[in-house]
Amino acid sequence: MAQSVFDFGMIGLGVMGRNLLLNMADHGFSVIGFDKDSTKTGALESAATAGTTVKGVAELATMVQLLERPRKLMMLVPAGQPVDDVIESLIPLLEKGDVVIDGGNSHYTDTLRRVKYLRDKGIHFMGIGVSGGEKGARTGPSIMPGGDKEAYEKVRPMLEAISAKVNGEPCVAYLGKEGAGHYVKMVHNGIEYSIMQLISEAYALLKQAGLDNDRLHQVFKTWNEGDLQSFLIEITADIFLQKDDKTSARLVDVISDKAGSKGTGKWTSQDAMELPVAVPVIDTAVALRTLSGYKDERVQAAALYKAPDAKLNTPADTWIKQVHDALYFGVIISYAQGLAMLHQASKELQMEIPLPEAVKVWRGGCIIRSTLLEVYTTAYKASPELPNILLNKDVAALVENAITNTRAVVAQAAQTGTAAAGIMSALAYFDAYRTERMPTNLVQAQRDYFGAHTYQRIDVPGSFHTVWGE
Amino acid sequence: MAQSVFDFGMIGLGVMGRNLLLNMADHGFSVIGFDKDSTKTGALESAATAGTTVKGVAELATMVQLLERPRKLMMLVPAGQPVDDVIESLIPLLEKGDVVIDGGNSHYTDTLRRVKYLRDKGIHFMGIGVSGGEKGARTGPSIMPGGDKEAYEKVRPMLEAISAKVNGEPCVAYLGKEGAGHYVKMVHNGIEYSIMQLISEAYALLKQAGLDNDRLHQVFKTWNEGDLQSFLIEITADIFLQKDDKTSARLVDVISDKAGSKGTGKWTSQDAMELPVAVPVIDTAVALRTLSGYKDERVQAAALYKAPDAKLNTPADTWIKQVHDALYFGVIISYAQGLAMLHQASKELQMEIPLPEAVKVWRGGCIIRSTLLEVYTTAYKASPELPNILLNKDVAALVENAITNTRAVVAQAAQTGTAAAGIMSALAYFDAYRTERMPTNLVQAQRDYFGAHTYQRIDVPGSFHTVWGE
Repeated sequence: MAQSVFDFGMIGLGVMGRNLLLNMADHGFSVIGFDKDSTKTGALESAATAGTTVKGVAELATMVQLLERPRKLMMLVPAGQPVDDVIESLIPLLEKGDVVIDGGNSHYTDTLRRVKYLRDKGIHFMGIGVSGGEKGARTGPSIMPGGDKEAYEKVRPMLEAISAKVNGEPCVAYLGKEGAGHYVKMVHNGIEYSIMQLISEAYALLKQAGLDNDRLHQVFKTWNEGDLQSFLIEITADIFLQKDDKTSARLVDVISDKAGSKGTGKWTSQDAMELPVAVPVIDTAVALRTLSGYKDERVQAAALYKAPDAKLNTPADTWIKQVHDALYFGVIISYAQGLAMLHQASKELQMEIPLPEAVKVWRGGCIIRSTLLEVYTTAYKASPELPNILLNKDVAALVENAITNTRAVVAQAAQTGTAAAGIMSALAYFDAYRTERMPTNLVQAQRDYFGAHTYQRIDVPGSFHTVWGE
Repeated sequence: MAQSVFDFGMIGLGVMGRNLLLNMADHGFSVIGFDKDSTKTGALESAATAGTTVKGVAELATMVQLLERPRKLMMLVPAGQPVDDVIESLIPLLEKGDVVIDGGNSHYTDTLRRVKYLRDKGIHFMGIGVSGGEKGARTGPSIMPGGDKEAYEKVRPMLEAISAKVNGEPCVAYLGKEGAGHYVKMVHNGIEYSIMQLISEAYALLKQAGLDNDRLHQVFKTWNEGDLQSFLIEITADIFLQKDDKTSARLVDVISDKAGSKGTGKWTSQDAMELPVAVPVIDTAVALRTLSGYKDERVQAAALYKAPDAKLNTPADTWIKQVHDALYFGVIISYAQGLAMLHQASKELQMEIPLPEAVKVWRGGCIIRSTLLEVYTTAYKASPELPNILLNKDVAALVENAITNTRAVVAQAAQTGTAAAGIMSALAYFDAYRTERMPTNLVQAQRDYFGAHTYQRIDVPGSFHTVWGE
């Protein structure tokens, strides 16, 4: 019988699973992967770096048998039923103290349920968010683990070894109880939707000033060397240069505007409404991505409605600077809304998410990594319980620098008819957030008028009802 | 043993249940109500109009026994478990062919489950949305029934008798299969959230021009005599006149700005994201109502961030007209988004919701009744399968009339720092909707770049992947 020699096992050898294993092997761990598909086990072994210990097997039981005790294994399979199926086939093969990790995009409520289910059997179950795409998995992803801390300590050396590093610090940390890892990943993805929507608006706004793809590349490249430095800005700069291999056009110009989605942005908005916490820029990003799919209707509407007469009359260089500031402002707000959601979830859902750690983890490896997160890391170090990053003075200074140009961009977009849904939403959220007295007293009056829902007063506590109009 | 003499029974004699029964009795039906609380059965009987047949009983079995076969009864109890509890206590008392109605604010998926559960027992279960508050229930609500048509025909005479009337037509109609009634009511409430948010923004914008409560009353009263004529504008005009009985102030000024909610607006947004269909103004209304509850943070933010230097420089009369148009535009968009959602739900969820009927039902009795719905009724009569009301030429003409002033209001709000989240969202949605090519091609490029999610092309069908940046 074979000896138990492998440090870590992977169930599911798609590109993400394979790359994570190879990454571990490169860091000196002996790894084994299971997949029913022998082309995938073969691909794993043949991609291994010389001198590393990497094995692929086609039987789950074989892999489990070959793992050192307590076993440490991860599954990377599609969210939903497949995860439960893998769990059921694992249970008879495992022993008390083993650690099972779900590294996919599961909804945190599923993770919570599975943690409890396996805890009763003495097995540690962890939900871990992994961001960074294929390349990140191979060379250093951002890793968001949640679950019990005892289990985390067992896998920590491996996760720290394979994760991205920023200033020598690994982009992985214990992020809270039970479903917290998948919750943080979900919110990460909501912020990702939001920033991508904002970048697409900046693109549309810049095109108003007549910028072609080469100029757009240059603008985004320059932006990526300044305070907007981030993965998404960097790849956007690249995108404008990419040539189409079918036509003589740039690829971006022949790509359809019907955008797909895998639903994690939607979850963020839906779950924010449950808490509740306001994340309107993320909501807007989800809605606009949906609207992009209603192409036939949009074509009809475009024929029916004419564009406004007003044309952009700001000089291009000024406009580029203004759009930069509006985008930067929108990005600040996107993070602020997502982080406010994490703060609220940490309390309301008893997940105990350490926000300073979450922000640190996001600085490298993941899709939303950016230099702005350095400012946020400093802010949370000073004040870990900050309910909203907008209440930090350094962040406030960044906002104040960008706000005047943001207002100018929104005013121009409104007058010239460019749909700047995310930027407008960010501005309106900010203006509401910095309002001591919102006009929602009127909403309270209306609700009491027609539905006897009662209202609160500003002078005395309690609930009151008025028979209105008498 | 008593004879079966009552036409209709009610379970739960809160103010809504009582008022609906009294309304039926006034229209010649003999009615009986059940409530364990004897003060409520007493209140029912003592409020009955002389000469009507109204009885209150404290035993459910007694009421069921006294109903004519097939029985027709409604429950008006809190959504959730209470509805299931009532169903379980009813089952042993009912016979095949009886009709049970849930008149509360249940989520449509619960209704769907209950319809199937009771169908197996030969009992018709209907989910019916009722809007109009206490007064509406007593004098004529808007009624949104869904379920099987056979059951609807049995209760139709009663529902038509008690409903609101517009031009002699009852504000009730069969609105589709199974959960459709509660679905339509849910979307009604989402639109209600949206319009209330927009009115609160108009209030804040008008206050910028220095209007006091008397002037605000006058403006809303005048608006209610024009194209904005609607229940919500009418009560808003009233609200500004209401005096506080504790202080010398107007009541609206001593009401807290922390707005409550019962969650049906939230459901609309969450379910829209499931379909998916874009309802960003409703999303925004939900988010802003949530934000109103974060009072402590807003107070801190107000101290940290200064208002912009720019002040409103539009003359008051011009501003009032501009804000009117922005509000009217926002209201058009609010209905458009809600109705687009119904159109999509009707198809995707196989509910077969007749939109011309839904709009007709909303014209009277309910919270979102307005003269604008007359235009919509005409539009849907001409084209019942219209996917979005914005594609109708008459609606387009209304939009074109209002759009220039809407743009001016958004530009001013952005520059002066008034949070016009709903109006901005409505404008951005419209500008995206009338855009043949959105900038979401960039989003597709980004998704393929970092996640190999593939993209579609404008020239040839299929899914494509590019290795970017090489």
